[in-house]
Amino acid sequence: MQVTRQTKVGLLGPFGTYSHEVASGFFGGEAHYHAVANIQGVFQSLAAGQVDYGVVPQENTIFGSVIETYDSLRLYGDTFVRGELILPVDHCLLVKTGVQLGDIVEVLSHEQALGQCANFVRQHLPNASTQATASTAAAARMLLDRPPTSAAISSRACANIYDGLEVLREGIQRDEANFTRFYVLTRRRNVPIPSLPDTPNSRRKGLLRIINKSPTSLSSSQGDILAALNQLSTEMEVVRIDRRPAQEGVPFQDLYFTEVQGSNPSPSAPVLEGVWDELLDSFVSKVKKLGFEASVMGSW
Amino acid sequence: MQVTRQTKVGLLGPFGTYSHEVASGFFGGEAHYHAVANIQGVFQSLAAGQVDYGVVPQENTIFGSVIETYDSLRLYGDTFVRGELILPVDHCLLVKTGVQLGDIVEVLSHEQALGQCANFVRQHLPNASTQATASTAAAARMLLDRPPTSAAISSRACANIYDGLEVLREGIQRDEANFTRFYVLTRRRNVPIPSLPDTPNSRRKGLLRIINKSPTSLSSSQGDILAALNQLSTEMEVVRIDRRPAQEGVPFQDLYFTEVQGSNPSPSAPVLEGVWDELLDSFVSKVKKLGFEASVMGSW
Repeated sequence: MQVTRQTKVGLLGPFGTYSHEVASGFFGGEAHYHAVANIQGVFQSLAAGQVDYGVVPQENTIFGSVIETYDSLRLYGDTFVRGELILPVDHCLLVKTGVQLGDIVEVLSHEQALGQCANFVRQHLPNASTQATASTAAAARMLLDRPPTSAAISSRACANIYDGLEVLREGIQRDEANFTRFYVLTRRRNVPIPSLPDTPNSRRKGLLRIINKSPTSLSSSQGDILAALNQLSTEMEVVRIDRRPAQEGVPFQDLYFTEVQGSNPSPSAPVLEGVWDELLDSFVSKVKKLGFEASVMGSW
Repeated sequence: MQVTRQTKVGLLGPFGTYSHEVASGFFGGEAHYHAVANIQGVFQSLAAGQVDYGVVPQENTIFGSVIETYDSLRLYGDTFVRGELILPVDHCLLVKTGVQLGDIVEVLSHEQALGQCANFVRQHLPNASTQATASTAAAARMLLDRPPTSAAISSRACANIYDGLEVLREGIQRDEANFTRFYVLTRRRNVPIPSLPDTPNSRRKGLLRIINKSPTSLSSSQGDILAALNQLSTEMEVVRIDRRPAQEGVPFQDLYFTEVQGSNPSPSAPVLEGVWDELLDSFVSKVKKLGFEASVMGSW
């Protein structure tokens, strides 16, 4: 599938967010990007056909799963995960051109970024106050209307997007592995996405939705979610389990988003797309027979 | 174990929160209650020996798991879960004594409660503005300093705690099952808690902590977390899985909080406390041999 000027990509905005950075790295300069105010808005744009693809944060290595993304996946059940993107999060200190470290009395950013860079601020800007903003990119944009004594913690991209800003320091986050992982979404299953080559089963992934509809009817000795997971093909292994309320009117009924990947012992053997999808579909059929509600929510 | 005036219980404050309501229902009128400003503070008080027990929200049937509780369990590894309490959440509209519905121009509450009661506000107070507060109890307390045109959404308990307030309407949340589940915490394993009678295995629960330390060394055909879960005794079933970043320096390494319960086919047979704990300990030994890090974090 070819990215063209007609390719529309929805992402968590404003421009300059990490979502924007990772999406433009993947879809390239030709695509048309729509910055949306919040994560659920990206799903709405996709469902309404305003965009062809969506890029939303799924988890961060420090802060964990992004609840709003999982709840939107529940709400927009037709949305399909067709890929993953991982971005090392490298926070920069942005200022108006020419401003020096000693000039700064105020630091703006999203509270997660402020937390990740707290050591840097304490050490290098001990007298500066901090102010939380809606996103890291929003902090950079706010700099334009502030006196030069303000600084923002955001991505390097923001220095290119907003005229008159420059990077004063980079890599100012805690010395700790900090990555954010994103899902690439399509409106339905089987929408082609760019650069998905023939991939061996061992590299394939899938996202499964499992709801325990009638727990008491299970005769398995290992009841509940474990009974469902044990229906997975031996060619699959579980890499992520995220539990959310099913919200179908029964208190404490859960929806388990389960990410699986291929564990094919001969990873060199490439397989056709259909084979992996058949493994996912077969799992769904099996657990439905056990009384669970289930569906395939992603394959990539 | 007997609750006395020396029994100190830490909970998420201020007084009048649902945590306070559920804790005082369980520990009764004799115990001494410490209201702490946030969830992590309850764990800190417990670790420092300032309180004997802690009561923290673990999940809500609409909003799901309470991340701050799980991250505090990770941080304060010695804290032990010794019980669960479930509270139906019944929101009331509180006003200064004598105020009528038609007088109200402003509604204060925690944003979750505002969301759960949005239909009521839209229908009965279409012209009132809403303001988010730190907790439902904080909203009630703020009423005291406001003109009588303000109202708060909070628990019935707040009307008793704060003089001059009364319940104008009750049960104003969305017509949907709304429960919050709490954990009762102790500083260490085996601290006795009130009213834990001899319980058959089928009613016992446990909380297990599982970290996949060396995923590549696993020879099981079902790798990762599923290989660990399959080491559970057939007398146990999995009722909750909550995934959080392990935060041990390896990106995307996960800690799975796994809640199990007894699935003993003869629930009438009571068992000694030791037997259930031996099943939990035996699981930990087995998964450690597979290369996981694991521990028992709760037994009740």
